[in-house]
Amino acid sequence: MTDAICRHDQGFHGFASDNCASVHPDVLAAIALANGGHQDSYGDDVYTAHLQQVFRRHFGNEARAFPVFNGTGANVVSLQSMTDRWDAVICAVSSHLNTDECAAAEKVAGIKLLTLEAPDGKITAESLDVHAWGWDNQHRASPRVVSITQSTELGTCYTPDEIAHICERAHGYAMKVHLDGARLANAAATLGVGFKAFTTDVGVDVVSFGGTKNGLLFGEVIVVLNPDAVRGLLHLRKASMQLASKMRFVSVQFEALLAGDLWLQNAAHANAMARRLEERVRGFPGVVIARPVQANAVFARLPTEATRRLQGRSHFYVWDEATGEVRWMTAFDTTEGEVDDFAAAIGEELRSV
Amino acid sequence: MTDAICRHDQGFHGFASDNCASVHPDVLAAIALANGGHQDSYGDDVYTAHLQQVFRRHFGNEARAFPVFNGTGANVVSLQSMTDRWDAVICAVSSHLNTDECAAAEKVAGIKLLTLEAPDGKITAESLDVHAWGWDNQHRASPRVVSITQSTELGTCYTPDEIAHICERAHGYAMKVHLDGARLANAAATLGVGFKAFTTDVGVDVVSFGGTKNGLLFGEVIVVLNPDAVRGLLHLRKASMQLASKMRFVSVQFEALLAGDLWLQNAAHANAMARRLEERVRGFPGVVIARPVQANAVFARLPTEATRRLQGRSHFYVWDEATGEVRWMTAFDTTEGEVDDFAAAIGEELRSV
Amino acid sequence: MTDAICRHDQGFHGFASDNCASVHPDVLAAIALANGGHQDSYGDDVYTAHLQQVFRRHFGNEARAFPVFNGTGANVVSLQSMTDRWDAVICAVSSHLNTDECAAAEKVAGIKLLTLEAPDGKITAESLDVHAWGWDNQHRASPRVVSITQSTELGTCYTPDEIAHICERAHGYAMKVHLDGARLANAAATLGVGFKAFTTDVGVDVVSFGGTKNGLLFGEVIVVLNPDAVRGLLHLRKASMQLASKMRFVSVQFEALLAGDLWLQNAAHANAMARRLEERVRGFPGVVIARPVQANAVFARLPTEATRRLQGRSHFYVWDEATGEVRWMTAFDTTEGEVDDFAAAIGEELRSV
Amino acid sequence: MTDAICRHDQGFHGFASDNCASVHPDVLAAIALANGGHQDSYGDDVYTAHLQQVFRRHFGNEARAFPVFNGTGANVVSLQSMTDRWDAVICAVSSHLNTDECAAAEKVAGIKLLTLEAPDGKITAESLDVHAWGWDNQHRASPRVVSITQSTELGTCYTPDEIAHICERAHGYAMKVHLDGARLANAAATLGVGFKAFTTDVGVDVVSFGGTKNGLLFGEVIVVLNPDAVRGLLHLRKASMQLASKMRFVSVQFEALLAGDLWLQNAAHANAMARRLEERVRGFPGVVIARPVQANAVFARLPTEATRRLQGRSHFYVWDEATGEVRWMTAFDTTEGEVDDFAAAIGEELRSV
Repeated sequence: MTDAICRHDQGFHGFASDNCASVHPDVLAAIALANGGHQDSYGDDVYTAHLQQVFRRHFGNEARAFPVFNGTGANVVSLQSMTDRWDAVICAVSSHLNTDECAAAEKVAGIKLLTLEAPDGKITAESLDVHAWGWDNQHRASPRVVSITQSTELGTCYTPDEIAHICERAHGYAMKVHLDGARLANAAATLGVGFKAFTTDVGVDVVSFGGTKNGLLFGEVIVVLNPDAVRGLLHLRKASMQLASKMRFVSVQFEALLAGDLWLQNAAHANAMARRLEERVRGFPGVVIARPVQANAVFARLPTEATRRLQGRSHFYVWDEATGEVRWMTAFDTTEGEVDDFAAAIGEELRSV
Repeated sequence: MTDAICRHDQGFHGFASDNCASVHPDVLAAIALANGGHQDSYGDDVYTAHLQQVFRRHFGNEARAFPVFNGTGANVVSLQSMTDRWDAVICAVSSHLNTDECAAAEKVAGIKLLTLEAPDGKITAESLDVHAWGWDNQHRASPRVVSITQSTELGTCYTPDEIAHICERAHGYAMKVHLDGARLANAAATLGVGFKAFTTDVGVDVVSFGGTKNGLLFGEVIVVLNPDAVRGLLHLRKASMQLASKMRFVSVQFEALLAGDLWLQNAAHANAMARRLEERVRGFPGVVIARPVQANAVFARLPTEATRRLQGRSHFYVWDEATGEVRWMTAFDTTEGEVDDFAAAIGEELRSV
Repeated sequence: MTDAICRHDQGFHGFASDNCASVHPDVLAAIALANGGHQDSYGDDVYTAHLQQVFRRHFGNEARAFPVFNGTGANVVSLQSMTDRWDAVICAVSSHLNTDECAAAEKVAGIKLLTLEAPDGKITAESLDVHAWGWDNQHRASPRVVSITQSTELGTCYTPDEIAHICERAHGYAMKVHLDGARLANAAATLGVGFKAFTTDVGVDVVSFGGTKNGLLFGEVIVVLNPDAVRGLLHLRKASMQLASKMRFVSVQFEALLAGDLWLQNAAHANAMARRLEERVRGFPGVVIARPVQANAVFARLPTEATRRLQGRSHFYVWDEATGEVRWMTAFDTTEGEVDDFAAAIGEELRSV
Repeated sequence: MTDAICRHDQGFHGFASDNCASVHPDVLAAIALANGGHQDSYGDDVYTAHLQQVFRRHFGNEARAFPVFNGTGANVVSLQSMTDRWDAVICAVSSHLNTDECAAAEKVAGIKLLTLEAPDGKITAESLDVHAWGWDNQHRASPRVVSITQSTELGTCYTPDEIAHICERAHGYAMKVHLDGARLANAAATLGVGFKAFTTDVGVDVVSFGGTKNGLLFGEVIVVLNPDAVRGLLHLRKASMQLASKMRFVSVQFEALLAGDLWLQNAAHANAMARRLEERVRGFPGVVIARPVQANAVFARLPTEATRRLQGRSHFYVWDEATGEVRWMTAFDTTEGEVDDFAAAIGEELRSV
């Protein structure tokens, strides 16, 4: 019997972040299945071996899966494996890579980020041109990779065609494409297609495939779709402190997520809860839905006073102090009742202003 | 019901590494207790808050605990927080930091390692003098930290007095002391004292406290004993990709380990199994126990031919090809029967040579 | 008698860059004065010692001078000494630091650059606010330094008041101010004041003082105006490969430049040549002067066809392919006749289009 | 007329370091020849273009020359161009790279140095074996380059055969060979052969060719002998802050040195002065010549008291406090009279003890 104690309300689900969510019971069950006995460490276990098939089924026969600890790790290891020491990476100003990773790309890998303004978090193929030049200019870090996010940090989704155009244009410049898929499942659920349709099939070279935000305990997977796009990945994963010793417990979580349709159930539910919240609050006087709701986030602008009071009732993030934009996020474990209650609370606070 | 499948023998425990071991059932139970509902991410949860008390009880009132993903992460984040960009770290040639972390310290943090030969993995206080000079010499990275390992990579333990002497000498040079405690519990079990007696009480500034090798699923904790010894730790943890989003699940594992005496039961059992193995094989003709058995590893030299055959029966590591030294490692889940069977197998293969 | 041979036209001066210029004869004479005999290396020579007085006279009694090899070196060593590993630097998008140093700041020092759009190369005090937040946010590199350029990469100058406002606002946020003064002398000549008036006196903490573009053979000096703003500079200079062994020959060049008024003669002449060129071409149909001419550069837009032909006659850089903007740069050794001839050539090619 | 003032005794030559020496008059004359007029910057000048022929004549038709500022720069840029982010470099414990560059290799490039004890500064081909393993081991930085020094930091020289054996063994492991030739000319003078005989002809891939210690004002050249051994060198040179804007003045110095036999005159003279000093003091009671004198340094052990007094008369370095070993260094401008006077002073102080 464990000496640890339950210290929190297991029935409360808020709207701060899908990182605050719990672990899906099937995932804990899978960890228990992989437990007991010894298995070789650092990826030489049967679960990580089997995971290759799981990912190939979703991403095609060339796909190779490299489990890591977290999303920043997946991004920074991926980008290191895709670049040389003198290369740069093009990304959106609003990308997690640029704004929320404490400059890990610059600090750990010395990578310069060339940023693009991106309405609703999505860059366009054409916008790459502004940075895509000067590979033989010794004064300039060489643009080598385009990194996009799907679904984006602003709760929007690229269509498969949009990604195809980005890949085509990037490849035309001999640049590679990395996709930060911390919420890839949410995008697939929205688009109604498999992962392959908007990654492998349209030219993406490497994906950071997220699990933590979709019901796992922890863990992300670097999915290499184009083997020629990466070098030194195994060493870089270790040197970047992203190599799990008991890797079987990362891999089996992804098996639980991807062997059946748990990934889709979780993501579709989270998305539905975001749409439900949007529908509930859309008509409220004083609130403006700020971005298309295409995944599991609702961005809205509301009066600062209402926001302040509402945060006193339930934790969530102000996205932009200047405009009063806030982010409400749903997860696989958000309930309809909680959405309705939260929408009601929003309505109350808006009326009180 | 999870779609994952059990793919291995849950009853097999080998002698390759404590990293190959399973997760203690109490730890899984603790994770389940912390599951359900939402909790703030990135360390703002109640389990991480409570963890501070747990660590203070073991390490004294100044102790602060910062959970990270793995041991290399704990070491490299610790050392970054203890150094400036132009500093160097003194460590044993045989230290994990120097030999098994794919140069993470150099690559991620630009830290130069000044190495010392160390019989049985232990450096001496006096040996520091060879590197402890030249802080005002602009041509030389400044020695700022001494990093020791307890128990060592060679299965040995420093006595509290030995660590006290190292700390005293290091501090006399205005250097700080970091202790890599990937197997700290094994050392405490061997020494028969609490952690505090050979860390806080003798002058250690920062500890990498290991959990993975002692029955956790994953997770290590940077324990800051001297708050003046570190700077920027929170940012460095994130920038080094060691900040877990669902941190409650790291923290609660350590609560399970440390709230009661699970840490001690696990470590003491692993140590006992190593001593049992040593006792069983010590008298075999052809085998030489190469190092004092003071934790959960047995280092032995035996004929290459016997090693080769034995590896065909059970996976373990050759430590030194040149001398024929091998490492056999026990864990919290190693059984007496397995030790006896393995000892018997060793005996058989020695006789067959 | 040297075996080297003169291989170029010693009478030709173009408009490509002040980096293409020659060395002022007085500077070569100074090198000859410092030659002969032995002097301690790495800065322990009498010329570097004396240089401290020279810089104190220009920058005030707190100033300390650290010679380095080049401008990128001066910038990146300065910024390292002003930041910790987890810090960021705010600068203009168009700054040399951001666009022309092959990401040295990111690669060598892991520094994230937070960029600001800057009309005519000058950022405003108010614009700092967009980046100046979140020092206690572990997900974000901490904005610690503002780096401005005087005169700017676009040939403009900040007024002392403008710099004062930037420093005041930066210091209000507990940020420091670095000034990239690769062309500081040109700015002083334009403003008609000494260096101190727009650096020390208005709150600048550290200056990269340029010599190469103003008639030296090579060499820049990091001038620390606020000793509390830097740490580890000597070690960082060496580790960043910017420590000259025969430093006397860097230092004596700056003595030649700054002991009398050579710095001012050179800069004022270069500036005058730029103004002369501007005056000559301003009225030409088809040419638009694109930026205020406040230092030694003329930025102009002209038809692509004219540019192409003109480049066939004399090398210079296209600044912006999209708008047809070009840069013409003068130097201390540009002659009036060459300006007039070049202006005439511009006129001819414009008429031929 | 320059405002700089001669502040030192142009007739004094000491024994501290060849870095303290002056600039050969022919080198200053060459700089004057290259002065005047404009030349394209950053290496696009006629002197740097011509330099390619100069180096090809000495090193063979494949050689390409890349001027940089200093020796540390030459080493660290070379090694970066020869390695990937996850690689390690094998070198002698006593190498300048390991002991005197303030960890630039680790800090700027994240390179791990795998060190070898080296009697008299020379590693053996066989000693490589201890580090040459584990390229497919993700826990270990991959040994990719062997870096040797010629002449060594201890005043000794490898024979061409010794270097050939090192190259053969390194290449057999698919490792490359870098040679730190800060004093390459001294070695050539001692061996009585051209550079090619112990570099290109025996398999060295890249050389850091030193000029500063052999009569230049400043400047070193990265000489690539095997084009397949390097990648990204131009970008790495700039990002490592080693790209001189007025490069013609670096290149023409090397033309002065290498077009005729100035390199050999200077080096042979320095070597002869070292041998003369050795001969003068060898028989003194109380002094022990500690290393073979094969270049321009004399290492000797003498009583601490004598050393202390002697340093009061003339600056030189204690090499090893523990053994009382000191280093006396000669240069191209050391005179016979100065050697004889210094030897006499040594004798006096030895007799006074």
